[in-house]
Amino acid sequence: MTTEERKAEDARFRQEYPLFAQYPELIYLDNAATTQKPSCVIQAESAFYEKYNANPFRGVYELAEFATEHYEEARAEVAKLLHANADEIVFTRNASESLNLIAYSLGNLVLRPGDEVLVSIMEHHSNLLVWQQAAKRTGATLRYLDCTQDGKITAEMVEAAITDKTKIFAVTQISNVLGWKNDIKSFAEICHRKGCLIVADGAQSVPHIEVDVKALDVDFLAFSGHKMMGPMGIGALYGKKELLESMPPFLFGGEMIDTVTREGAVYAPVPHKFEAGTVNAAGAVGLMAAIRYLKEIGFDTIERREAELTQYAVKRLLAIPGVHILGSQDPSEHHSIVTFLVDNVHPHDVASILDMDHIAVRAGHHCAQPLLQHLNTSATTRASFAFYNTMEEVDALAESLAQVRRRMGYVD
Amino acid sequence: MTTEERKAEDARFRQEYPLFAQYPELIYLDNAATTQKPSCVIQAESAFYEKYNANPFRGVYELAEFATEHYEEARAEVAKLLHANADEIVFTRNASESLNLIAYSLGNLVLRPGDEVLVSIMEHHSNLLVWQQAAKRTGATLRYLDCTQDGKITAEMVEAAITDKTKIFAVTQISNVLGWKNDIKSFAEICHRKGCLIVADGAQSVPHIEVDVKALDVDFLAFSGHKMMGPMGIGALYGKKELLESMPPFLFGGEMIDTVTREGAVYAPVPHKFEAGTVNAAGAVGLMAAIRYLKEIGFDTIERREAELTQYAVKRLLAIPGVHILGSQDPSEHHSIVTFLVDNVHPHDVASILDMDHIAVRAGHHCAQPLLQHLNTSATTRASFAFYNTMEEVDALAESLAQVRRRMGYVD
Repeated sequence: MTTEERKAEDARFRQEYPLFAQYPELIYLDNAATTQKPSCVIQAESAFYEKYNANPFRGVYELAEFATEHYEEARAEVAKLLHANADEIVFTRNASESLNLIAYSLGNLVLRPGDEVLVSIMEHHSNLLVWQQAAKRTGATLRYLDCTQDGKITAEMVEAAITDKTKIFAVTQISNVLGWKNDIKSFAEICHRKGCLIVADGAQSVPHIEVDVKALDVDFLAFSGHKMMGPMGIGALYGKKELLESMPPFLFGGEMIDTVTREGAVYAPVPHKFEAGTVNAAGAVGLMAAIRYLKEIGFDTIERREAELTQYAVKRLLAIPGVHILGSQDPSEHHSIVTFLVDNVHPHDVASILDMDHIAVRAGHHCAQPLLQHLNTSATTRASFAFYNTMEEVDALAESLAQVRRRMGYVD
Repeated sequence: MTTEERKAEDARFRQEYPLFAQYPELIYLDNAATTQKPSCVIQAESAFYEKYNANPFRGVYELAEFATEHYEEARAEVAKLLHANADEIVFTRNASESLNLIAYSLGNLVLRPGDEVLVSIMEHHSNLLVWQQAAKRTGATLRYLDCTQDGKITAEMVEAAITDKTKIFAVTQISNVLGWKNDIKSFAEICHRKGCLIVADGAQSVPHIEVDVKALDVDFLAFSGHKMMGPMGIGALYGKKELLESMPPFLFGGEMIDTVTREGAVYAPVPHKFEAGTVNAAGAVGLMAAIRYLKEIGFDTIERREAELTQYAVKRLLAIPGVHILGSQDPSEHHSIVTFLVDNVHPHDVASILDMDHIAVRAGHHCAQPLLQHLNTSATTRASFAFYNTMEEVDALAESLAQVRRRMGYVD
């Protein structure tokens, strides 16, 4: 691809995002927190309210049928994206809610005193706190699988960590701090051979790489819509059907039941058993638009662009004196995420100085405090990329970062 | 108000709803399930994505600060609507999630074996199943407060039902089937005098009447945005601050913590303790627009119009042979909801025939099966009003209903 071709591609993507027109100088590198939304997603959600708005499942009239059809079409689109079946997809509010659902429902079903839950130390708090709680509730033991100091977990480490007491292994597909990609397929094979279930956090993978839950043979996978160009307030949980069917409901309310009496209830079949109350149909339809948008661009293009951006960023940052990258020093081992420290400058000051140059990055613990403790730090600065970012934006980041120590008064 | 003045008011409201332009013949009488959305709400949600989109709380850059400000401004708007303080408002996905939050967190905190939870029989499944589950989990006893056969609960009945073992009374402010309004202020006084907490379901009241949680002295109140012209996927829970502070978190994840270690966590102050993961800031901003829209119209106007519509509907339906209204036969005791049966015609057939005349009503159990069992029926048809409905729409409903038995082949 020539520079001209790349710039034409850049321009095409940029004009699809109204927010970038609003802030022409903005260099948005906080995509791991949330992405910007293309017009097609914003319009899809609006169009639902303008053309099909009704409470799905609840009416026999035409409009309610339209609403139901669109909502179920969105579920089918999510299923297709993940190579799953539609009745294996539960719509939730976000990845955190998906993980709470599993930890409450599966945790209570599976865990007994003496059992172990294994959690990777690189988990986002969402896939860590829920298992701390599940262990406390059930009397199971919570164990951590530490990563190496350069931020890796290998199949050998998983093989060694899973004992015959381990019932659940909770692990992210891509670390939201390190950008490291775990080999979920190998991990799942080890888990299943040892009689353990695997719960994957796909929040940082589903937006960036092709995820095939059947090929991975993962038992559960959670993700959010808002990190993949979709609206806020909608996420999903994939679960193998026989597992979802065996699990008790988590949230209770309308539409998740067949019959209710004073004494008890018979619950609806999956996935409806797990969707209490009025569903976020407009959000689901917005997520469907986001998935179609990403598929139209193609995950080959998305992966190519993000690999170029990320690897270039790692190379440029490694060349700046006083800047240190967390985790792997190999550019190819970062997936859209580069987290770093600047000698003697607090990460929040780094982010504030970058903000003066209109570069939006995140500073702090990235909801992964135990990981940072393990890596002997407490706060860092993170740049995270989407396919709509450009090589020129990486240059701007590197150039601004190269000035941070000087702007803080240090003379190199 | 003259007929001309009313028609001018009707016209003003109708033109604010893009869906009504899309379906000029539609008579939408399923507002208790979900309402239609005015342009200002749809635009507010879009504008958030176009102008302020970032992950609130998570960034030190300017855009994230905008997002945080808008989200907290929405919380303040909800608080003002209910006469509460901002830190007493928790954003949730919908009323069902709000009620699940209370039943899990407060239920586990307060209920012990031997204690009683009192639930009104007129509760929506969302405020009933959660207490069935809380009772099962904690060993407390679930008791029902039955309504009279004409669908009423009085303060005397509450006084008689609450014993010194009753720790929680769960009751709706307005029944989603009967349209009956409970006297929450009196109920709360009785509860507090007897050392019991009161959890009110405001899903059918907050959109329709002025609700002042301080005047009611209710301990908790839940409602949904989508039933009050707001977006799907956003709801709220009001709770007295000292109670919210005493309660353990419900959902776990990002942003609801201060610090996390391998062994445990210190949680953030309320309300953030109860908001795990990325918040639905766009939904909250949409709800803020809906509240401002309703306040601009004024609850005096809303209550006047809905009382006129509902009372006229009750009167007209009472005059149709073979049509029977559930609950009170007094038009003034229905709040925007009229549920009815037609002799020898299944409620789903009633709704289907009305649908042929472009009248959208709901048929079924309305997520209140124990109430319908108590009233010796299993399914009914429900018409529910919003202020944007018109007297002519009530006429159309009555005229269509008057033909239902004939169209089913009965000769009166």
